[in-house]
Amino acid sequence: MCGIVGYIGERCAAPILINGLKKLEYRGYDSAGVAVFDNGALKVVKCKGRLKCLEEKVANETLEGKVGIGHTRWATHGEPNDVNSHPHISNSGKIAVVHNGIIENYIKLKEFLQSKGYNFESDTDTEVVAHLVDYNYKGDLKEAVMSTISELEGSYALGVICSDCPDMFLAARKDSPLIVGLGRGENFIASDIPAILEHTRDIYILEDKEIAVLDKDNVKVFNIYGTEVKKEVFHVNWDVAAAEKSGYKHFMMKEMCEEPKVLKDTISPRIKDGKIVLDSINIEPEYLENINRIHIVACGTAYHAGVVGKYLIEKLARIPVEVDVASEFRYRDPLLSDKDLVIIISQSGETIDTLFALRESKRKGARVLSIVNVVGSSIARESDEVLYTWAGPEIAVASTKAYNTQLAVLYLIACDFAKKRGTIDDEQLERIIEQLKEMPSVVDKVLQNKEAIQKFSSEHYNAKSIFFIGRGLDYALSMEGSLKLKEISYIHSEAYAGGELKHGTIALIEKGTLVVCPMTQDDLLEKMISNIREVKARGAVVLAITQEKNKEVEKVADVVIKIPDVDPLVAPIAAITSMQLFAYYMAVQKGCDVDKPRNLAKSVTVE
Amino acid sequence: MCGIVGYIGERCAAPILINGLKKLEYRGYDSAGVAVFDNGALKVVKCKGRLKCLEEKVANETLEGKVGIGHTRWATHGEPNDVNSHPHISNSGKIAVVHNGIIENYIKLKEFLQSKGYNFESDTDTEVVAHLVDYNYKGDLKEAVMSTISELEGSYALGVICSDCPDMFLAARKDSPLIVGLGRGENFIASDIPAILEHTRDIYILEDKEIAVLDKDNVKVFNIYGTEVKKEVFHVNWDVAAAEKSGYKHFMMKEMCEEPKVLKDTISPRIKDGKIVLDSINIEPEYLENINRIHIVACGTAYHAGVVGKYLIEKLARIPVEVDVASEFRYRDPLLSDKDLVIIISQSGETIDTLFALRESKRKGARVLSIVNVVGSSIARESDEVLYTWAGPEIAVASTKAYNTQLAVLYLIACDFAKKRGTIDDEQLERIIEQLKEMPSVVDKVLQNKEAIQKFSSEHYNAKSIFFIGRGLDYALSMEGSLKLKEISYIHSEAYAGGELKHGTIALIEKGTLVVCPMTQDDLLEKMISNIREVKARGAVVLAITQEKNKEVEKVADVVIKIPDVDPLVAPIAAITSMQLFAYYMAVQKGCDVDKPRNLAKSVTVE
Repeated sequence: MCGIVGYIGERCAAPILINGLKKLEYRGYDSAGVAVFDNGALKVVKCKGRLKCLEEKVANETLEGKVGIGHTRWATHGEPNDVNSHPHISNSGKIAVVHNGIIENYIKLKEFLQSKGYNFESDTDTEVVAHLVDYNYKGDLKEAVMSTISELEGSYALGVICSDCPDMFLAARKDSPLIVGLGRGENFIASDIPAILEHTRDIYILEDKEIAVLDKDNVKVFNIYGTEVKKEVFHVNWDVAAAEKSGYKHFMMKEMCEEPKVLKDTISPRIKDGKIVLDSINIEPEYLENINRIHIVACGTAYHAGVVGKYLIEKLARIPVEVDVASEFRYRDPLLSDKDLVIIISQSGETIDTLFALRESKRKGARVLSIVNVVGSSIARESDEVLYTWAGPEIAVASTKAYNTQLAVLYLIACDFAKKRGTIDDEQLERIIEQLKEMPSVVDKVLQNKEAIQKFSSEHYNAKSIFFIGRGLDYALSMEGSLKLKEISYIHSEAYAGGELKHGTIALIEKGTLVVCPMTQDDLLEKMISNIREVKARGAVVLAITQEKNKEVEKVADVVIKIPDVDPLVAPIAAITSMQLFAYYMAVQKGCDVDKPRNLAKSVTVE
Repeated sequence: MCGIVGYIGERCAAPILINGLKKLEYRGYDSAGVAVFDNGALKVVKCKGRLKCLEEKVANETLEGKVGIGHTRWATHGEPNDVNSHPHISNSGKIAVVHNGIIENYIKLKEFLQSKGYNFESDTDTEVVAHLVDYNYKGDLKEAVMSTISELEGSYALGVICSDCPDMFLAARKDSPLIVGLGRGENFIASDIPAILEHTRDIYILEDKEIAVLDKDNVKVFNIYGTEVKKEVFHVNWDVAAAEKSGYKHFMMKEMCEEPKVLKDTISPRIKDGKIVLDSINIEPEYLENINRIHIVACGTAYHAGVVGKYLIEKLARIPVEVDVASEFRYRDPLLSDKDLVIIISQSGETIDTLFALRESKRKGARVLSIVNVVGSSIARESDEVLYTWAGPEIAVASTKAYNTQLAVLYLIACDFAKKRGTIDDEQLERIIEQLKEMPSVVDKVLQNKEAIQKFSSEHYNAKSIFFIGRGLDYALSMEGSLKLKEISYIHSEAYAGGELKHGTIALIEKGTLVVCPMTQDDLLEKMISNIREVKARGAVVLAITQEKNKEVEKVADVVIKIPDVDPLVAPIAAITSMQLFAYYMAVQKGCDVDKPRNLAKSVTVE
């Protein structure tokens, strides 16, 4: 996930591009850059770090051109550094490109271009686009871009400028957002509306595989066959703040709605020909044969993903797994050897407790595999191996989409390890893979059901104490559901194993106490129904979350939120979305600052 | 711990004895029995199970004697069954004895008596007393009892009747309670006042090694040298309900006050010549050398003892330990082999979730060692090995003294395993043993400090949400402290690792939120002080519990409850008592039914 902008008009391009990028910084902030057509040549300024660095660097140059493109980066392929920053420029210096998305066939294209004499400077997938446009350029930039995109696989939003064409530039998209802003004597492109909102409220929304050709007075849009498409002008009447959230009231809701997409981004590149391929790591079958234990270490939400991971890995790969909160693990002189694998989970990759636990693990000789969202973060750098969650930047302090993708990666790991250890048969593995591929559409259905959750929340947001109970995987889910509610609604909630509540805590259940019960595990359903009866007997109000097919739950719970009929093993990925929605609506009803809850920081870099 | 009664007078003894025993049932209910002098001979009726069984059995007999003794049993030596029930009768049929306490040298005495031709029917330590009085009896019962008690080591409260002496009986005590009730034309003995309160309010309180000789009109008390002692009459003005709690307002307080004694009972028989001797179990050094993992499985409070156990065993014996709540363990297809040891913890020995987890462990081939308070309970019977906590019956639903003794046993296990594995040096081991021996007096000092806790509670009992935070062993303690508070005061409290709170839950801290911080671990003190600063910055009120020496804690916490300067490793046994007192006083202030909190049962025998 990155942000791109483009400008053509009568004004100096660079400041407009940088201001636009500022509005897109939520889409990435690893590095930034601009390319402008300046005194007859393309001039590129780019650097690692926040936009402020770029702004200072630009201030020290004279960039006077009136056409240009800009980019703010969320690293996927290649570390965040100056060279990997966008825009990328062709060896000839003729073509500059900004890109958001992932070019899946970039290795094949790179080899082809290298065979044609192109030199690659960066580790990015984007650089192939610049060289390929250059290779395809025979005097008509539009033809060159059309040829190029017909060769690209994956997703992209592109902005392209060419030193031969000072009065125009091009844009194209597939599976990544891109809009065109229509001004008076000037035109724009951007990944999202806020970037151009101070200049115009009239836009075109580009569709997949459409190409826009912009000059200062006109914008023409073509389909993949080169036929001009008549676009309708969309008039934006949101205010600027709302626009940054793409129309959502809160980043948290926006990020939950992104879950289907980021699950797809995280899962699908790792499933090839129906098989799980984790080619960014190299855990050998021999290593797994002789492994002693796995330790999953994390904090907060990532820790709760780890609890799910324990169930999965023990169940599928039959390796003992211990899950620890990082601040405890670090100081308890953990028993670790070189036959132990430590799996570290962190969205930001900078969580200090987790980072120190990683270092302690390495000091003791353990191998470290990390699951991280931010490319090039400290944890990613210091781990032996990394599996990234492609969740994109998460702005809301309460983590949602990052958790779902952490789960997705843990499923992939558990299946991969099980396959290598021979503890899973092909049929079972295929079934899980099929189900994982379905998860984006399953989560989409869960999101569509949000009104039912909203309604329930509107009736119960005044609750003082709420309990989440579940068994097995549902217990792990309960922990995360409870934390989510707590951190944004400030309602004291707590998660319990379904069978454990009666050993003390049931004393707190009185008439009207709300109890939330994820019940996605077929073999534990009867036991959970008994536990529900126990709390109902003390007056509790029960909200259950279960698959469509479990009709018997309706007989005991007060309200049932249904999720599609997925296999119990993968159900957590879908069920947690319901619980995130529940936390969200409870907090909204209470009037809390959902995106920025009191006392909390997004990335905890103190102990 | 057992209950004894005795009667001599004009009325039929049996119903009086049984009514008295009913009032002592809190002292044990494994089995019960009576012996009366009936038509020229001693007649004994006894049976396993609750008093009701005895009552029915007596109803079917004609027991007309006017002198008799009775007993309700809390099994220590020997299973609860008919044969092991009291009273025990000598082979001659002449002497019947009831006993509360433990005869420590009973094996030596038994061998001696066997060499003299006595046959033993039961597994109890008590039977030696009956035979020894018989052996010493040369026509004067008082002389025989005096000779006998001069040979006994350990603790006892005794009632003795003899078929040669229909008009009198004897009583004696050391380290176990016994009172004499003074009636008109009738006299009584009992372990506790309530047993005789419907008959008289005038009593003698027997001192150690005093012997009482009772007939229907007189009671004479002698010291060990046979000299008559002038006793003062104590007039009881409690009501009956209060009396059953020995003057304490609640069983919970009574049981907390028993902690020094039960710790001594649990620890001291297992330390011989400065060495830990766990002779009731047989875990071989070779087994421990090749052990794979230890799993500690329990519910509720016992689970929290298990969390302490994990720290101890991993730290001292360097064996990986996993702690599980039983209801989860059972259903998650745990990875177990014959190289895994499962440690099961349960006060009642009947907790159904735990019992099923035990069976699942055995089915998978693991070895099972249990830590149980009730002798002969299901868990004790089905385990491969048992270590008993000698906590005596626990009546209050909220467990206190049983938890402390569970900890004590876990220390003994950790040290024993460490010694056998060579992971501890002699000096360190000796230091821990010395500290363990000190624990009864340390806990006594903690109890003496209860007014400070009472005062704090009186100012904060209206709290809505309370958090307990700690690091390392203090985190384990926090869990138990929080549960205790929850189950009796109905205040929603929750325990967190000190470093984990900031990863979400700190959002709940607002002005006035109470945070309880056990801080007994020297090496984590600085980190905890930082965590206190974090919550103080959000307005929290902090109650810290720490050793006398940690003066710096006073600078950050609002109130500090001091415990004696014990080693951090053993500190939990002492610190938890403060937290139990805190829970108690909060609940009392709120006017809750401390001993019988709503929704809870003492021994959970449903899933």
